[in-house]
Amino acid sequence: MTDNITMTHGSGGRQMHNLIHDHLISRLQNGILEKLDDSARLQNANTDRLAMTTDSYVVSPLFFKGGDIGRLCVCGTVNDLATSGAEASYLSLAFILEEGFPLDDLKKIIDSIAETAKEADVKIVTGDTKVVEKGKGDGIYINTCGIGFIPDGVNLSTYNGAPGDLIAVTGSIGNHETALMLARNLLKFDTSISSDAAPLNKKISRLLKLTKGIKTVKDPTRGGLASALSEIAEHSNCEIILQEDKIPVDKDVQAVCELAGLDPLFLANEGKYVIVCDPSSADAITQVFPKAEFIGEITDKQPKGRLLIETVSGGLRKIGMLETAQLPRIC
Amino acid sequence: MTDNITMTHGSGGRQMHNLIHDHLISRLQNGILEKLDDSARLQNANTDRLAMTTDSYVVSPLFFKGGDIGRLCVCGTVNDLATSGAEASYLSLAFILEEGFPLDDLKKIIDSIAETAKEADVKIVTGDTKVVEKGKGDGIYINTCGIGFIPDGVNLSTYNGAPGDLIAVTGSIGNHETALMLARNLLKFDTSISSDAAPLNKKISRLLKLTKGIKTVKDPTRGGLASALSEIAEHSNCEIILQEDKIPVDKDVQAVCELAGLDPLFLANEGKYVIVCDPSSADAITQVFPKAEFIGEITDKQPKGRLLIETVSGGLRKIGMLETAQLPRIC
Repeated sequence: MTDNITMTHGSGGRQMHNLIHDHLISRLQNGILEKLDDSARLQNANTDRLAMTTDSYVVSPLFFKGGDIGRLCVCGTVNDLATSGAEASYLSLAFILEEGFPLDDLKKIIDSIAETAKEADVKIVTGDTKVVEKGKGDGIYINTCGIGFIPDGVNLSTYNGAPGDLIAVTGSIGNHETALMLARNLLKFDTSISSDAAPLNKKISRLLKLTKGIKTVKDPTRGGLASALSEIAEHSNCEIILQEDKIPVDKDVQAVCELAGLDPLFLANEGKYVIVCDPSSADAITQVFPKAEFIGEITDKQPKGRLLIETVSGGLRKIGMLETAQLPRIC
Repeated sequence: MTDNITMTHGSGGRQMHNLIHDHLISRLQNGILEKLDDSARLQNANTDRLAMTTDSYVVSPLFFKGGDIGRLCVCGTVNDLATSGAEASYLSLAFILEEGFPLDDLKKIIDSIAETAKEADVKIVTGDTKVVEKGKGDGIYINTCGIGFIPDGVNLSTYNGAPGDLIAVTGSIGNHETALMLARNLLKFDTSISSDAAPLNKKISRLLKLTKGIKTVKDPTRGGLASALSEIAEHSNCEIILQEDKIPVDKDVQAVCELAGLDPLFLANEGKYVIVCDPSSADAITQVFPKAEFIGEITDKQPKGRLLIETVSGGLRKIGMLETAQLPRIC
């Protein structure tokens, strides 16, 4: 690690992981933070079923096919809450505006926030607005923090995976990050790819009412499917094997990846979940997420903690966390 | 209002007030947000005694006499929670780092956060780290969101003031903003002024246990004492009269204000409260805050909603919200 922050520290991969472990957790551990689940589970005399999560949104550009920073800042946070099984109730909303930012863009973004909050059935209850000088920001950065309540009997965690469990993904991967790439004109490609940004909290609530066999729900955002599953393999201390031919990737996304030399396994998604479940829950998953695919399973093999992929050609490839950023500022 | 964001939109004064009312509240109102209390009171089947607040911290410079951005991001948020009477329990912590930011500074800031969180007895339970390119930030911006639980029987609000209530301030005003001014070398002045940044949540909890007559607790940050009391006069629909000679201002702060042509009434504080109380609570306030001064009262006079100050010379002056920023990026 160098002595200064680099863009790679923000990529969701290994370097960010190290930054958080070496410098943040060592200083701030308190029995909850160091679990590093996407949503912290809280305890209190009044309620022990509370979950809390936060994200800052620095996406560039602010508007893209399928969404904008406003839609993202609601979806990302309610989706993170749902990873703990919590039904999102309340969001905070904080803006860091750059001097000179067009008021019309701000209004468009707030309209998008209002619409997405309605879609997700979540209330924005408190906020903050700061303004920084021109050249000290990039139009608008948004932070949302979310809290929600976890229904009785629900106990989701990246630590819950066990041999025999199935791995599902709720739809095709890579759309959000490729849509961002196209919005930045990094690729010239005639395609209809749009971001998958969507609030999935209501669907997860429905799923958890239908079946008791859901172990883990994780949203594969920065670092993609590979980083999400690496973390689950590590936290659950088990081996995960994926079948490459089962992983859903839209034709256009696949074409963009081949053109740009990218691996869709590492691309960010904003409207998909990875789910670890008992095989008895498979039907319920398909019922709630008709486009879900079962892409792998947890084995009882040694060494534990690793993620493997069985390629189309029959070989076994070990996959790790994202080492360097594919694209900065995608959420 | 111009069509683009200006620095004044972030000052805590009239323009920010208009921005929030005209563009945010109109789009996002939901029965809770539009109360615009510093800390939102939440209701749920599991608990109706929950409070939530958020702030982004963009202070410049990051380190100053009496504090740093790390101390500020804990104090500001636990102090906002205490304005609803909530005992701060949990904080989220989100960094927006600028590429090239020195890791040593980040470590110092995290140490300060850890120390202040311990002092405030609050747990940081979830977080997020984003990195933006050089020139798209200013070293580090921090957002914290806090949640806490409001004890039974406590019902603080800026809407609670009534004729006969006393107005107290818990100590001398203006120290934080003048310390920032000196840290930026905007003034050459040989002084020991340091920021008053401090977590006051434990003191407010103690006060609320000692007496039942506390109506409003508000922290006079951006916009200062005058903006805080203007808001209370407006929300409580009553007239507030202050006695200028009772308002505590340290000698050095007064000297800096005279030199720079500033009014301490509009300067930001980070470790002081304005309290509205029944006269029967005065002793309890003095017991918990030995430096508190009783600076005014609420009258039954018309027109309602205004803030007046009786000057040392005996005149009456009407005070409004801050119209333009005295100093940007002070928290």
